[in-house]
Amino acid sequence: MDLSRVTIVLVRPSRPANVAAACRAMKNMGLRRLRIVEPPAGLDDRDARAPAYKAWDILDAAEVVPTLSEAVSDATLVAGTTGRDDAGETWSPRELAARAESRAAGGGIALVFGPESSGLTSLELGLCHVLVHIRTDPAQPSLNLAQAVLLFAYELRLASETSEAPRVANHATAGELEQALQELRGALLDVGYLDPLNPDHILVELRRMLARAGPTPREVSLLRGLARQVGWAGRVARGGKTTP
Amino acid sequence: MDLSRVTIVLVRPSRPANVAAACRAMKNMGLRRLRIVEPPAGLDDRDARAPAYKAWDILDAAEVVPTLSEAVSDATLVAGTTGRDDAGETWSPRELAARAESRAAGGGIALVFGPESSGLTSLELGLCHVLVHIRTDPAQPSLNLAQAVLLFAYELRLASETSEAPRVANHATAGELEQALQELRGALLDVGYLDPLNPDHILVELRRMLARAGPTPREVSLLRGLARQVGWAGRVARGGKTTP
Repeated sequence: MDLSRVTIVLVRPSRPANVAAACRAMKNMGLRRLRIVEPPAGLDDRDARAPAYKAWDILDAAEVVPTLSEAVSDATLVAGTTGRDDAGETWSPRELAARAESRAAGGGIALVFGPESSGLTSLELGLCHVLVHIRTDPAQPSLNLAQAVLLFAYELRLASETSEAPRVANHATAGELEQALQELRGALLDVGYLDPLNPDHILVELRRMLARAGPTPREVSLLRGLARQVGWAGRVARGGKTTP
Repeated sequence: MDLSRVTIVLVRPSRPANVAAACRAMKNMGLRRLRIVEPPAGLDDRDARAPAYKAWDILDAAEVVPTLSEAVSDATLVAGTTGRDDAGETWSPRELAARAESRAAGGGIALVFGPESSGLTSLELGLCHVLVHIRTDPAQPSLNLAQAVLLFAYELRLASETSEAPRVANHATAGELEQALQELRGALLDVGYLDPLNPDHILVELRRMLARAGPTPREVSLLRGLARQVGWAGRVARGGKTTP
């Protein structure tokens, strides 16, 4: 999904610092377009602007729109946030992110947030196509406005990255690990740690532990260097040769 | 996953309001335990406390801990946040949430955040078992501290709602593993494997590899026995005493 198609709409936000913090959260996640219905006083104050750290461009470009209807008029999908989980069918942020693309069908997506204390009215929710809800803990269910904006933006961003290239793991092969283990085995015999009558009992445990870690080639070569040096010390300590 | 096993660790946070906002985000998502290494001045100020809205209990119960090592010593999985995406293998919040259960193996999970401006130092990241990173937009990559806490808490909460009963395995704690690592460090210095001028560079790699394996107490005691014997050989080989 193309994140430039998403508009965040804040309806009657009461605290300018929350608007500013929402701008930073939006920019963190690659959203750019903000519309505000009835912005609070003091949005230009220096202190209020501070939370929009390095996202002042978004704050400055925010469009002030007289009504919610006008703020969402160019969207093909309007999602309204609600703090109530008894509001009928609601989508989670993840569900919205998964479905927004097909539901918006190439058009704009408006994501609407109500005032901090009261949320969107039923009338305003009635203007929305779908309701979205973040499940929180009953002990403190109320998210800060900018925090709610962040969670939706985060999910939309992740959904927009669906085509990301698979991460290439960089694990040593079993053969490479085994070579290091055999060198360790020799060194730990030299040093008197493994019992020469039954060295493999403990080696099995070391192998299992190291294999669980999935060592990288670099780590395998560290282990081999370690084995070399330990083996040298063992042979010297037990009266053998003296070159490492 | 049981969210009560998660501890949020804030290292040298500079702004008390961010600590307070992190408390609200934690409580929103059902996390309760907060530890702070070197808390900022002014945490008790009324204004600074305001962002912990209805989460003042978490702020009041936060433990102040002198060092990061102590803050994470009872965890079996220590995840360190980094803002850098070139920090080697990093997990996303979603990957952490998916894997934390099995990696912590029934033990505690510590999630560590650095100072707002600079993040965790390499030394501090070296104490962590896995590194975690939130992918953000290059235009404003830096998340507010409480926002970062929220995203991880959100993913952990979602994972906790879907996961089955915890698999009880038997992992050593970070403190137990650290003791073995420090003994290994001494032994590998004795044996001439670690550079006395910079022993910790390679120790960090060994720690990360071993922590990835999630060693059992039995394996940790194998490592300690190994360190003892290697140290003895090293001291003898280099002309020291002769009893193991």
